[in-house]
Amino acid sequence: MKYPKIPVARSIVALCEAKGIHHVVISPGSRNAPLTNGFAYNPNIKTYSVVDERCAAFVAIGMAQQLQKPVAVLCTSGSALLNYYPAVAEAYYSDIPLVVISADRPIERIDIGDGQTIRQKNVFENHILYSANLHSEVVLENAAEDKKLQQKQFESQKHNEREINLALNKAIEGKGPVHINVPFYEPLYDLMEGVKVDPLQILPEIIERTYSENQLKAYADLWNRAKRKMVIVGVEQPNSVEQKFLDELAKDDSVIVFTETTSNIQQPDFFTRIDTLIGPIEKDENREELFDALRPDILLTFGGMIVSKKIKAFLRNYQPKQHWHVDPKKAYNTFFCLNKHFETSANSFFAHFFPLTTEVESTYGPYWKKVRSRRQKRHEEYMNEIPYSDLKAMQLVVPKMPKDHVLHLANSSTIRYAQLFNWDGSLKIYCNRGTSGIDGSISTSVGAAMTAEEPVLMITGDLSFFYDSNALWNNYIPKNYRIIILNNQGGGIFRILPGDKNSETFDTYFETVHDLNAKPICDLYGFEYASAKTSEEIEKHLNGFFDTSEKPRLLEIFTPRKVNDEVLLKYFSFMKD
Amino acid sequence: MKYPKIPVARSIVALCEAKGIHHVVISPGSRNAPLTNGFAYNPNIKTYSVVDERCAAFVAIGMAQQLQKPVAVLCTSGSALLNYYPAVAEAYYSDIPLVVISADRPIERIDIGDGQTIRQKNVFENHILYSANLHSEVVLENAAEDKKLQQKQFESQKHNEREINLALNKAIEGKGPVHINVPFYEPLYDLMEGVKVDPLQILPEIIERTYSENQLKAYADLWNRAKRKMVIVGVEQPNSVEQKFLDELAKDDSVIVFTETTSNIQQPDFFTRIDTLIGPIEKDENREELFDALRPDILLTFGGMIVSKKIKAFLRNYQPKQHWHVDPKKAYNTFFCLNKHFETSANSFFAHFFPLTTEVESTYGPYWKKVRSRRQKRHEEYMNEIPYSDLKAMQLVVPKMPKDHVLHLANSSTIRYAQLFNWDGSLKIYCNRGTSGIDGSISTSVGAAMTAEEPVLMITGDLSFFYDSNALWNNYIPKNYRIIILNNQGGGIFRILPGDKNSETFDTYFETVHDLNAKPICDLYGFEYASAKTSEEIEKHLNGFFDTSEKPRLLEIFTPRKVNDEVLLKYFSFMKD
Repeated sequence: MKYPKIPVARSIVALCEAKGIHHVVISPGSRNAPLTNGFAYNPNIKTYSVVDERCAAFVAIGMAQQLQKPVAVLCTSGSALLNYYPAVAEAYYSDIPLVVISADRPIERIDIGDGQTIRQKNVFENHILYSANLHSEVVLENAAEDKKLQQKQFESQKHNEREINLALNKAIEGKGPVHINVPFYEPLYDLMEGVKVDPLQILPEIIERTYSENQLKAYADLWNRAKRKMVIVGVEQPNSVEQKFLDELAKDDSVIVFTETTSNIQQPDFFTRIDTLIGPIEKDENREELFDALRPDILLTFGGMIVSKKIKAFLRNYQPKQHWHVDPKKAYNTFFCLNKHFETSANSFFAHFFPLTTEVESTYGPYWKKVRSRRQKRHEEYMNEIPYSDLKAMQLVVPKMPKDHVLHLANSSTIRYAQLFNWDGSLKIYCNRGTSGIDGSISTSVGAAMTAEEPVLMITGDLSFFYDSNALWNNYIPKNYRIIILNNQGGGIFRILPGDKNSETFDTYFETVHDLNAKPICDLYGFEYASAKTSEEIEKHLNGFFDTSEKPRLLEIFTPRKVNDEVLLKYFSFMKD
Repeated sequence: MKYPKIPVARSIVALCEAKGIHHVVISPGSRNAPLTNGFAYNPNIKTYSVVDERCAAFVAIGMAQQLQKPVAVLCTSGSALLNYYPAVAEAYYSDIPLVVISADRPIERIDIGDGQTIRQKNVFENHILYSANLHSEVVLENAAEDKKLQQKQFESQKHNEREINLALNKAIEGKGPVHINVPFYEPLYDLMEGVKVDPLQILPEIIERTYSENQLKAYADLWNRAKRKMVIVGVEQPNSVEQKFLDELAKDDSVIVFTETTSNIQQPDFFTRIDTLIGPIEKDENREELFDALRPDILLTFGGMIVSKKIKAFLRNYQPKQHWHVDPKKAYNTFFCLNKHFETSANSFFAHFFPLTTEVESTYGPYWKKVRSRRQKRHEEYMNEIPYSDLKAMQLVVPKMPKDHVLHLANSSTIRYAQLFNWDGSLKIYCNRGTSGIDGSISTSVGAAMTAEEPVLMITGDLSFFYDSNALWNNYIPKNYRIIILNNQGGGIFRILPGDKNSETFDTYFETVHDLNAKPICDLYGFEYASAKTSEEIEKHLNGFFDTSEKPRLLEIFTPRKVNDEVLLKYFSFMKD
C-alpha cells in the first residue's frame, strides 16, 4: 500500500480512519497532494472529487447527516478554504460533524506574496468547535544524523498528533464543524510503500448527563400541576426519540405537541402543521382571546432549529411561565423565557421524567384537537378551489411522493409551503435550517443521495437551484436521484413579505425576476428533463417520475409568479372560519 | 425622492454617495431592505442585482478595478455574507477597495435560533482593513416623547455615523476591503419622502511620504556603485507609472527590468516574459554559472503580486545584497532579503531618486538583452513546430486580440501561458493574483465589462469557467463581452506539476478530468457559442469574433489534455539552446 512520505499526512489519514471517518470529499489542488494521496490510497476510506469547494462542503454535510458520523472535506491552500465557510456555519448551527482539512503553506511563506496563500489560522473562528493549527514538518533526508533536528521533528509530530485527535474528537463529541490546518513543505507528491503508522490515540468521550429523581422532582411537580403544556419538536434525525415516549405525551389531555416537517416524528395525535393552526388565529378578530387560550403554562422543547416563524412570534408575545429545553449540547433562548436547560437527550430525559409525572385532566388538548379538525376540513376545501400556483403544485406533489424516500427541502418558500402539508410518515425529511441559506441545499441533497439507503428527492425553488447548480458537477449522483423545481421566476418569498410589490425596485432587487429554466443545466450534467405549466402536466409528469431510470431526473414546475403570494396569504384567512 | 425610514440606512447611503461610491451590487434579501431601497432610490448611485453573493463580490472587484474607486456590495443576514469571503480575501491581497455592507439581526436575536442569523461581527477578521460593527436603532413612533430614548438613539446614531465614515475612509485610504455590519429592527420596508440627511462627515486622508535627498542619498550611492541592478514590476494599473521614469530605467546598461503580463507597462527594452528567460536556464547544464551572472546586486521592486514562480525561486536562491520595495502601503519580503520599504508611489520615488543617480557602464543589460533575442528566435521556431495544444491555441489567440481591449486572464494555467507571449501594448490586462483562486475570475471580468470603456475579453481554463459560471447570471453583461475557454478537460496545471500522471488517483483528484462543454451555459444565459478543435477552426472562429454582435460570445477551444504538459515542459528545454 502507498503512503504519502510526509508523516503528518499519514497521521491525519490514520486518525481519521481510527475514529470512523470513512468518507472524504476532496477538491483539487497541489498543496493538499500529501493528503489527497493519503486518503485516496487508503482502501478503508471512500474518497470523492468535487471541484467547487462551496458545494463540496455541503455535499459532506448531506453525507454526514445520513451516516450520522463525521465526514471530512479536504482542500488546497488559499481562497479554496474560504469557500467552505457557508457550509461550516450551517454545520455549526445544525450540529453536523464536518471535518475541514486544509493544506497550507509553511508559516514563513504567509504574507510574503506567494500565490494561493492567505491567513488560514483560525479563519472560521466565529463558527467552529475546534481549530487545530498544525506545525509544519520538514522532511530532510539527513534528519537521522542530526539529533537536534530529530528532536524538533519529534516534538512537532507529537504536537500535531494531539491536535488532530482533539479536533476529530470535538467533531464527534460536540457534533459540529472542526478545522485542521496543515502546512506542508515541498515535495508534496512523494509516496512510499508500507510505512508503519501508529500515531498517538486519544479516545473521544461522549458525556451525557443523567438526571436523578431528586433533580427532576421540582420540575415534575410543576408539570403535574399545569393544565396547559406545549411541546415543540425542532429538527430531529429520524428515529432518534423512542416511540413510547411520544405516545406517552400524546395521551395526556393537558399536553399538545407541535412537530414540524423536519422533526421526523410520527404520532397521529401530534399537531404536524403549526402554521395552519397559528396562521388563521393571526387573521382572526378574536386573536387575543384565542392566543390566550393557546398560551401554555409550560413549554417543553427538544430538537434543533424551529422553522415556523408564527410559533416564535406567538410565544414571544404570549410567554409561558416555564420554558425547558432538552438537548445534550445547547439550549437557545428562542422565546426569551428559557428557564431550564436539561443537558441530556430527549430519550434519557423522558425515561427519568415520566415516572414522576401523572396525567392531568384538561380541556387544552381536546379543544385544540377540535380546532385542528376544522382546519383540516378548511384546508381541503381551500385546496380544491385555488388556482394553479406554488401551493397547488405542492398539493399535487405530496401524495405522489413514494414511501421510504429521503426528502430534501430548500429554503425558503419551499420549506414553508411543505410545512402546510402532511407528508407520509416513512419519509426522512431534511432542510438546511442551521443558517437557512439558499447556498447549499442542492449540494446537501446530492451528498445525501451519495450515501442514503433510500432514494432522494430534492424540492427547491428556482433561486436555490440556480444558486447551487454546481452541486450537480460531480460523478456520484445516483440514477434514482430526483429534483423538483418550483420555478416562480424569482424569489417568490419576497412577494409574501411586506414591501411595495408594484415597483421596478421590487422586481429587480427583491424578487430578482428572471426567465431562466433548468433544461440547459440538465443538458450539461446528464439529467432527464421535463417541465410542467399546469396541474394536468404536473400529474402527467409525476406518474412514473420516481420509476427506475437510466439517468437522474428533474421536473421543473413553472408557476405564475404574481398569483402565488395571494393564494398563500388568502389561505390563512380562509382557514380561520 | 423616497428614503428608507430607518435613519442608519439613510446615513450609509448618504456617506457612500459623499465619498464617491456610486456603484452598489445588491443580492436579494429581506433584512437588507432598508439599504436596498436606500441605494436603489438614490438617483446618484447605480445599483445592480446579482443573486449569488460569491459572484456579486467578485463583480464588484472587477468594477472597482476599472473605476479605481470603491464599489459596495450589499447582502442580507446569515450565510449570504460568508459567500463574500473569497472576494474579500482577493481584495485584501490585491489592494482593491471593496466595501462589504451586511444587514444583520439585532444583537439580542443572535444565537437564539432565528433563521438566517450567524455571528457576523468581525467575521472577516483575518482579511479586512476595518470592521464597523454598528449599533441597531429602534425606530419608535413615540421616541420624541421619551428623553432617555431620544438620547440613546442620538448616541447610537452618532456612533454609527463615525464608524461608517472610518470604514469607508479606510477603503479609500488603504485600498482594500472593509466591512460594515448593520443590525436592523423590523419594519424593514418602510419608506418616507424628502428626509433631510446630514450625517457626520470625516474626510479620508491619503498620506504619501516624500523622501528627501538626505533620506535617499545612501541608497543612491549604492545604486550608483552597483553594476547589476534588477527591477521587477508586479501587478500595476495601466498608466500608473510615468513613461519618462520607465525610459530612464531602460537606458541604463546596468539595469534590467522584468515586467509581467499584469504589469501593464510598455517599454521596448524591458524583459516582458520572465519565464522565457529563466525557464531555459533551469534546464541548462551551466545553470549555476548563468544564474550567478543574472544575480543582481540590487533588486528594486514595485507593484503588486508577482506571478512568475521561476523568478521567485531564482532570487530566493541567488540573493541580491539589497532588495528595496516601493509602495505606499506594504512591502512583502517575497525573496527573503528585503532591506528597505520606500513607503511612497513609484512616481514619487523615481522623481526624487533619479536626480541622485548616474548611469553606470555595465555588460549586465547588454548581455541579457542578447540572450533575450536568442530566446525570441527559439520561441518562434518552437511555436512553428509544436502540435495542436494549449500553447498553440494561445499563440493563435494573441495576434487576433484587437487593440484597446481589457483582457482578463483566469488562474492558473491561463495566466502562466499568457506570460510566455508579448501582448499588444494597448491592452489593459488583469488577473486575480491576490489569492490566485479559480473562484471568481469570470465574475471579475463581468464586473470589468459592466464598467470599462473598452470591450472585455476573458480567457479562462475550463475549471475556472465552470466553477464560476454563475458569473453570467445577471442582466448587465454587454454584447461586446467575449469569453475564450481553453478546455483541456480538467485541471491541466496539475499535469505540469510533479506527481504520478498515470494513475486513476491523479485523473480523479488532481486533474479532475471531465467531459463538460460550455454550450449549455451559453444556452442558459443567452451567449453565442462556437467551438474549435483544431488550429484551423480556431483561426476561422476568431475571424470576426470581436465584431459587433447581438449577444455576448463565447469560443470554446478544446485541446488534447495529454499533449499540453509535454509541449510546455519541452518548451523550456528547447529555448535553452
